[in-house]
Amino acid sequence: MNIDTLTQILSMVAEGALPVGQAADQLKHLSFEDIGCAHVDHHRALRKGFPEVIFGQGKTSAQIIAILEKLEQSENIVLVTRIHQNKADAVLSRFPNAQYFDDAHLLKIEKQPPAITGRGTILIVSAGTSDIPVVMEAFLTAKAMGNEVKTLFDVGVAGIHRLFAYRQDLEKASVIIVAAGMEGALPSVVGGLVKAPVIAVPTSIGYGTSFNGMTALLGMLNSCSSNIAVVNIDNGFGAGYMASTINHVGVER
Amino acid sequence: MNIDTLTQILSMVAEGALPVGQAADQLKHLSFEDIGCAHVDHHRALRKGFPEVIFGQGKTSAQIIAILEKLEQSENIVLVTRIHQNKADAVLSRFPNAQYFDDAHLLKIEKQPPAITGRGTILIVSAGTSDIPVVMEAFLTAKAMGNEVKTLFDVGVAGIHRLFAYRQDLEKASVIIVAAGMEGALPSVVGGLVKAPVIAVPTSIGYGTSFNGMTALLGMLNSCSSNIAVVNIDNGFGAGYMASTINHVGVER
Amino acid sequence: MNIDTLTQILSMVAEGALPVGQAADQLKHLSFEDIGCAHVDHHRALRKGFPEVIFGQGKTSAQIIAILEKLEQSENIVLVTRIHQNKADAVLSRFPNAQYFDDAHLLKIEKQPPAITGRGTILIVSAGTSDIPVVMEAFLTAKAMGNEVKTLFDVGVAGIHRLFAYRQDLEKASVIIVAAGMEGALPSVVGGLVKAPVIAVPTSIGYGTSFNGMTALLGMLNSCSSNIAVVNIDNGFGAGYMASTINHVGVER
Amino acid sequence: MNIDTLTQILSMVAEGALPVGQAADQLKHLSFEDIGCAHVDHHRALRKGFPEVIFGQGKTSAQIIAILEKLEQSENIVLVTRIHQNKADAVLSRFPNAQYFDDAHLLKIEKQPPAITGRGTILIVSAGTSDIPVVMEAFLTAKAMGNEVKTLFDVGVAGIHRLFAYRQDLEKASVIIVAAGMEGALPSVVGGLVKAPVIAVPTSIGYGTSFNGMTALLGMLNSCSSNIAVVNIDNGFGAGYMASTINHVGVER
Amino acid sequence: MNIDTLTQILSMVAEGALPVGQAADQLKHLSFEDIGCAHVDHHRALRKGFPEVIFGQGKTSAQIIAILEKLEQSENIVLVTRIHQNKADAVLSRFPNAQYFDDAHLLKIEKQPPAITGRGTILIVSAGTSDIPVVMEAFLTAKAMGNEVKTLFDVGVAGIHRLFAYRQDLEKASVIIVAAGMEGALPSVVGGLVKAPVIAVPTSIGYGTSFNGMTALLGMLNSCSSNIAVVNIDNGFGAGYMASTINHVGVER
Amino acid sequence: MNIDTLTQILSMVAEGALPVGQAADQLKHLSFEDIGCAHVDHHRALRKGFPEVIFGQGKTSAQIIAILEKLEQSENIVLVTRIHQNKADAVLSRFPNAQYFDDAHLLKIEKQPPAITGRGTILIVSAGTSDIPVVMEAFLTAKAMGNEVKTLFDVGVAGIHRLFAYRQDLEKASVIIVAAGMEGALPSVVGGLVKAPVIAVPTSIGYGTSFNGMTALLGMLNSCSSNIAVVNIDNGFGAGYMASTINHVGVER
Amino acid sequence: MNIDTLTQILSMVAEGALPVGQAADQLKHLSFEDIGCAHVDHHRALRKGFPEVIFGQGKTSAQIIAILEKLEQSENIVLVTRIHQNKADAVLSRFPNAQYFDDAHLLKIEKQPPAITGRGTILIVSAGTSDIPVVMEAFLTAKAMGNEVKTLFDVGVAGIHRLFAYRQDLEKASVIIVAAGMEGALPSVVGGLVKAPVIAVPTSIGYGTSFNGMTALLGMLNSCSSNIAVVNIDNGFGAGYMASTINHVGVER
Amino acid sequence: MNIDTLTQILSMVAEGALPVGQAADQLKHLSFEDIGCAHVDHHRALRKGFPEVIFGQGKTSAQIIAILEKLEQSENIVLVTRIHQNKADAVLSRFPNAQYFDDAHLLKIEKQPPAITGRGTILIVSAGTSDIPVVMEAFLTAKAMGNEVKTLFDVGVAGIHRLFAYRQDLEKASVIIVAAGMEGALPSVVGGLVKAPVIAVPTSIGYGTSFNGMTALLGMLNSCSSNIAVVNIDNGFGAGYMASTINHVGVER
Repeated sequence: MNIDTLTQILSMVAEGALPVGQAADQLKHLSFEDIGCAHVDHHRALRKGFPEVIFGQGKTSAQIIAILEKLEQSENIVLVTRIHQNKADAVLSRFPNAQYFDDAHLLKIEKQPPAITGRGTILIVSAGTSDIPVVMEAFLTAKAMGNEVKTLFDVGVAGIHRLFAYRQDLEKASVIIVAAGMEGALPSVVGGLVKAPVIAVPTSIGYGTSFNGMTALLGMLNSCSSNIAVVNIDNGFGAGYMASTINHVGVER
Repeated sequence: MNIDTLTQILSMVAEGALPVGQAADQLKHLSFEDIGCAHVDHHRALRKGFPEVIFGQGKTSAQIIAILEKLEQSENIVLVTRIHQNKADAVLSRFPNAQYFDDAHLLKIEKQPPAITGRGTILIVSAGTSDIPVVMEAFLTAKAMGNEVKTLFDVGVAGIHRLFAYRQDLEKASVIIVAAGMEGALPSVVGGLVKAPVIAVPTSIGYGTSFNGMTALLGMLNSCSSNIAVVNIDNGFGAGYMASTINHVGVER
Repeated sequence: MNIDTLTQILSMVAEGALPVGQAADQLKHLSFEDIGCAHVDHHRALRKGFPEVIFGQGKTSAQIIAILEKLEQSENIVLVTRIHQNKADAVLSRFPNAQYFDDAHLLKIEKQPPAITGRGTILIVSAGTSDIPVVMEAFLTAKAMGNEVKTLFDVGVAGIHRLFAYRQDLEKASVIIVAAGMEGALPSVVGGLVKAPVIAVPTSIGYGTSFNGMTALLGMLNSCSSNIAVVNIDNGFGAGYMASTINHVGVER
Repeated sequence: MNIDTLTQILSMVAEGALPVGQAADQLKHLSFEDIGCAHVDHHRALRKGFPEVIFGQGKTSAQIIAILEKLEQSENIVLVTRIHQNKADAVLSRFPNAQYFDDAHLLKIEKQPPAITGRGTILIVSAGTSDIPVVMEAFLTAKAMGNEVKTLFDVGVAGIHRLFAYRQDLEKASVIIVAAGMEGALPSVVGGLVKAPVIAVPTSIGYGTSFNGMTALLGMLNSCSSNIAVVNIDNGFGAGYMASTINHVGVER
Repeated sequence: MNIDTLTQILSMVAEGALPVGQAADQLKHLSFEDIGCAHVDHHRALRKGFPEVIFGQGKTSAQIIAILEKLEQSENIVLVTRIHQNKADAVLSRFPNAQYFDDAHLLKIEKQPPAITGRGTILIVSAGTSDIPVVMEAFLTAKAMGNEVKTLFDVGVAGIHRLFAYRQDLEKASVIIVAAGMEGALPSVVGGLVKAPVIAVPTSIGYGTSFNGMTALLGMLNSCSSNIAVVNIDNGFGAGYMASTINHVGVER
Repeated sequence: MNIDTLTQILSMVAEGALPVGQAADQLKHLSFEDIGCAHVDHHRALRKGFPEVIFGQGKTSAQIIAILEKLEQSENIVLVTRIHQNKADAVLSRFPNAQYFDDAHLLKIEKQPPAITGRGTILIVSAGTSDIPVVMEAFLTAKAMGNEVKTLFDVGVAGIHRLFAYRQDLEKASVIIVAAGMEGALPSVVGGLVKAPVIAVPTSIGYGTSFNGMTALLGMLNSCSSNIAVVNIDNGFGAGYMASTINHVGVER
Repeated sequence: MNIDTLTQILSMVAEGALPVGQAADQLKHLSFEDIGCAHVDHHRALRKGFPEVIFGQGKTSAQIIAILEKLEQSENIVLVTRIHQNKADAVLSRFPNAQYFDDAHLLKIEKQPPAITGRGTILIVSAGTSDIPVVMEAFLTAKAMGNEVKTLFDVGVAGIHRLFAYRQDLEKASVIIVAAGMEGALPSVVGGLVKAPVIAVPTSIGYGTSFNGMTALLGMLNSCSSNIAVVNIDNGFGAGYMASTINHVGVER
Repeated sequence: MNIDTLTQILSMVAEGALPVGQAADQLKHLSFEDIGCAHVDHHRALRKGFPEVIFGQGKTSAQIIAILEKLEQSENIVLVTRIHQNKADAVLSRFPNAQYFDDAHLLKIEKQPPAITGRGTILIVSAGTSDIPVVMEAFLTAKAMGNEVKTLFDVGVAGIHRLFAYRQDLEKASVIIVAAGMEGALPSVVGGLVKAPVIAVPTSIGYGTSFNGMTALLGMLNSCSSNIAVVNIDNGFGAGYMASTINHVGVER
């Protein structure tokens, strides 16, 4: 439930248009709802500007459906992250209006496209083609949260002229997400070129001492550029979410 | 050299008020300057909105002074981070107008207080009293970059009612920095309460398996709150810098 | 101890030639059985208050059955932990009275429900829905050892009002088990609210730098709350066992 | 809670305008004090059964004194842990009634010896003579929290007959703390002999691959005895604190 | 080729019973033989007292067969370690006289049982039933190298009276191998009871922070008993080999 | 650079309107192609002496084909590394002239055999038979880059006379690649025997504490021989590439 | 107390030459003696063939002296390891007959030189000059335990002909200790040349990724030679002790 | 002894100009010389093209002097690495002709400047001013081995235009050494611009998760540029040595 819906209900009560009992019914799960396997946090959209997102890993499809049944009633948009094809199929047969994005392992129920409320454009840059799944998770998340989002793939530092050709796009973005695996050097180079904040997201692309993204993560944490902060390995969702909160700094929601 | 100074020089050339030769002289180091031990990046303020900051660790005081002599000519404010008392003393005798902050191991030359250009207030929260040095580095950095900054010390999760008493301050901040050592749980709790982006900075406070801040860092990277990104251990400077870039999203500089 | 020695001791007791106390002393430390692949510890219930529990990992179903055949004779309740469905099926065909709990990967032979002997209620709290399998292992273990046990799922710190709604349950529990993955922050918050001892059990829920639960473990070991001790990652069994020993402090068994 | 609010509540109670129960409820969750560098948690003794303990590491002696000045007014006993001799000396000149224990790096202000409220005896066992400083921190903490405490030094597994000679003491203890460095095997052996809960505290004694106690910690977390939970390396304070909470299970305080 | 065969050939040459050309033919691969994918080390039995052992991991069955075809000609006994069932099947169809031990993942071609040449009995002790595969690899290796070998399973420290019942066997052994997973404490206890050298072999039994045997390994390296040396995790082969070399100290071969 | 711009530049050159030198300068740094999922770096052969190599891991076969379609037009030779059989099959049906090497997981499109341009012979040495796949990747890469390449398998340090028999080959090589798993000792021994630079490539052969090649890598980085530099674990491609650049030092291409 | 002294006392009792009371007095601490800070293990020489060795690290000089006062009465030889100069000085003023070896950080009280009881010669080989302190600790330990011991310094693999010049010494030794830092390759080469068991002792010599000896340790654990077992980093004492137990296999003591 | 001196001696013998006895005397230490604490490798210059270099760490100044006394007789140039000021002073009083470079912790005895024998110029690039000590060690080593060497300091990726200004120098170098700490991204960028081989040397500059250079090392090992190989952290000596061997590929020495 977001702030608009809440205000509307309360206004109707104030105007006598909605009996107190009915209003109470609608609001009774304002805080959270215990459904046994979970405590659904209905208050999150109000508090955080975006409803609870379901972390799919380690949950059965039955649990995911149970939570979705609660959230879907009250929210315009709900995301499930880290959900694999087989679980997604079970969810899709229960919610035919849901969409599944298999490259991003993300499932979305969206009643209406969200309004664009962010200040500027979020640019998502990937070092390589293999980083695209992480980028897509970030892209879908930032889109769902009301932002203009652009992408730029495969402009890693081994052929750095490719990046420099997009220097204007970099300079115009209000927030930049940079996804890179292996040595994770791209955020440092991007960060050195722009004023905007950079969210660095290490990917697990690589082998041997890439340690499934740990090397990229460490590189990003030790960047000699200072307008950089880092999220967990392969955490496209978190990168998109954080970029959106940055793109909404000072925006009333 | 920032954008105002550059514009002024070029306008004077356009108006004939400044001969081309003199202008060229002033601009010749616009890009960078080779002083042997370093390539001073005079272009940084133009490109990034803030001049080069000197990383004091591993540099001799002679090297720091040599770089300062170049930067101090053209910039209103210059910072040296990770500089210890003995090196700072050598710098202070050369630059008597410099200020040294020993808790933050930071040295500053500031000709004029910077204008407040950030959108809102940056709030810096620490889990414990022992985290104060890291907070101070963040505070001084964000201040130097033109932000309103507030601090709140020692409100860690072992007595979480202390944090909740400041819930309004948390909700009003445009960006929040949270510094914590040990298990690094505070950013998750703060992140769960607010819409604003949270920059989490792990500190090296702790012992044994705190691994000098690694445990706090890992905790922050794995936060179940999504409006969080992380900087290096004890990197108060980076936290303050990143918070400032976020607080300036969409602000012309 | 072989049958002759046992018979001889018991005969002497029967004849009054050996005082009961002395006989008990002799029998107390002598009791295990060599079955080739294992030395079944029949003495454990006497010494530790609960019979030997079979660790299923790395054992063949034939070995598990062989050990069960010995333990099942003399014990009211026997547990096999970390046993997967296919091995469990083999065991179930030999012991049709056994029960298999597939979410907890635990098999139980229970002749009679154990008496409740623990002092108070053990409360098991999970940060997320995905932690439920670990919680179930703890729940079944603590139940088997004679305790009142309650559970509370999905009250993690990203929506901390959900936890606070159960503050009375927390305050009333004699021991609390807290299971959490990712950053593992929940035990610190719970520990800060109560007098009771908290057993923290990290789960392997998470990805990237969660390192299969290592991050949660480290967070728990470095908790700023002091009424916390930690067991191995995903060790629901150990958490339940330890909680039961705590709940029986000073209770004669 | 400031003085006005407190006075108002108490006046209402005095006037009969507020029932005692409701007033108590209001006061129970409202009590800390902001002294700038810290938020002193006056509520902790009420909530947790023991007042706030000051973690000395990373604090200046001025900060420690400032916090002590607040706590010392309202509490019978206050501890400062991880405080080295030179800081302790500064504290001792301000609080001449304080005691400093240099082997445990612990400072105590105790107005009256605490009453013994714990259920049974806490036994602290060390594998070697070199573990004594950690044991002393545990001993002093558990003593301060109202427990009978006994110690047993240097009974490690290389000469295991030394441990077995104390088998009766082990069996009689209500809680056992076992401190060991190197391979950390002692808690497993002790745990295998008794019913009581065992708090294992790894020490940093060792060299090379002892990794400053990490090896002992890992050994303890993987113990084949199940009545064991673990605290951080060298965390004698936490071990003593946890043992005391266990020894007070179900005891009204 | 061992020393006896070599002496016999050379004697026949000396006696004129073998023409030089034929002898050269037999000896020409005395040093090694290049078969493309491998350099078969025919000299090893002479130099080391036991022929080359084939490490099966990472080799195709064709490569293993090619090497066996060379070794089998000149050696009485050849071992292949770390060979899985499917590769072993291919080898068995080429060498029907080979034997495959699936619990130990070891394949053996043995023309004649080796003579017992070792000084005393090698005793192999396991902490748990799950460690048996590693023990079997050690057992088969030590047997193949001419030793009396005994085994003792499942006498871990959680029920230490089981170990003490075999104290005489421990004291009589000339070398002891101790295999243990989890915390790896058993070698320390065994080492503390005997004069004989103890080879500790960590196994990968455990979960979570057992780190696939790393915790057991670290525990063994940090043992407070000094008559212990350690081999790689799950390296039953190396343990058996090393024990045999110890059991042959000063024995002419 | 799109076709229009290129045509325009070349037309101006044809018309004498643009001097050749200036045109070359413009073309040298401008050449890549955006195909959506990738920015194909057509400039690489010009800049680096060898065309872009496609890293197969994490790419779909459709993406690999799309990139190949661009590179194959303009290059004589193209490599795809870390491509598994199933993806390779899809590529082979689109490019029937491609060759797939399944031991090296490498796919090659080669229009004409490259000329031998390297200074001397690159010798690739492996410690064991199991290292052959990594050696083959290095072999194919160095061959494709225009070098004489020789191999020598299974001459590890456990039978060091095998290596010494090839001392002349070692001394004659202009660059030596040494692949080894387990303890990775072979590069140190080889490096100690020759003047030539040695590229050490750790392989993931081993078990337990070999940590998938990390132990071999660390050993190589700490070699007491100084003519050694190291590439990532199992990075046969990088080893072959680096050896080729060394073998072409000072060679005009 | 060793077996000879014990036998002598008992014989005298049997012969009536020693009154029971006096014998009891002499034997009363046969098992162990509680001196407060330690439980001195008087039984160790009997059980293990060598008296308790004092681990100096973490003990005060007063504690070391207290333990020595007990051991020195009953033993012919006592060692203190890991004792630094300043503590050693305090011990030397109490026990003027003690000897301190500062390169090995070892202190010895020796009443009579021990008889040579070992089977053959223990050869200690070091890779470099910098490993000498660890070698000296091994040398002194093995000497004290009744062995012929030889040393060979600085024959590391970067100049492997130096090692081969001593091939006969290697082949004649009954046990070989090899100490090496950096990549720790020497034990593999030595192990490949001989039949005898090799005790590998990693040293902390190196920098960067030598990780204070961890790299050498890992290399040794993964040796492709199989007659190798490993002790802790810098554990010269353990290497010497283990070598002595091997050199005494089957020897009555 | 290098190849020229050896040839000269043998020629004189052949010509009868040098009696056999005298020649034998001069050559008797051709292989190595045992001086007790070390086996001086006189053969190294002949075999490797450069005499033995003394690794100063862990050696006493007496040991260093003893080795120098042997090497200095027969070699034109001798280096001691990782030698600190106090040891260097002792060496300098014995060898007044030695030079000590305190920023590089390197001591050199050079009778005559070495001839330039390398093919081209070695360029050493540092990311920051703080990396200069490592660069100086590489510089002095490569110089001593007969190379033209140039340096370029402080051109890290945070201001990448500084690097691009030196693009011609980069393209002209025959070998490039790149030293960088923190995220170690510079070698990837440099490697992407040139054909020449790049030796990457990670430095320990940084803090927190830079892990004393481990992060830079990992980044370099995972570079997306393929003409890169890596040496140990802070190993300027190895980088210079390796670069020299590369610069001498195919050069007769």
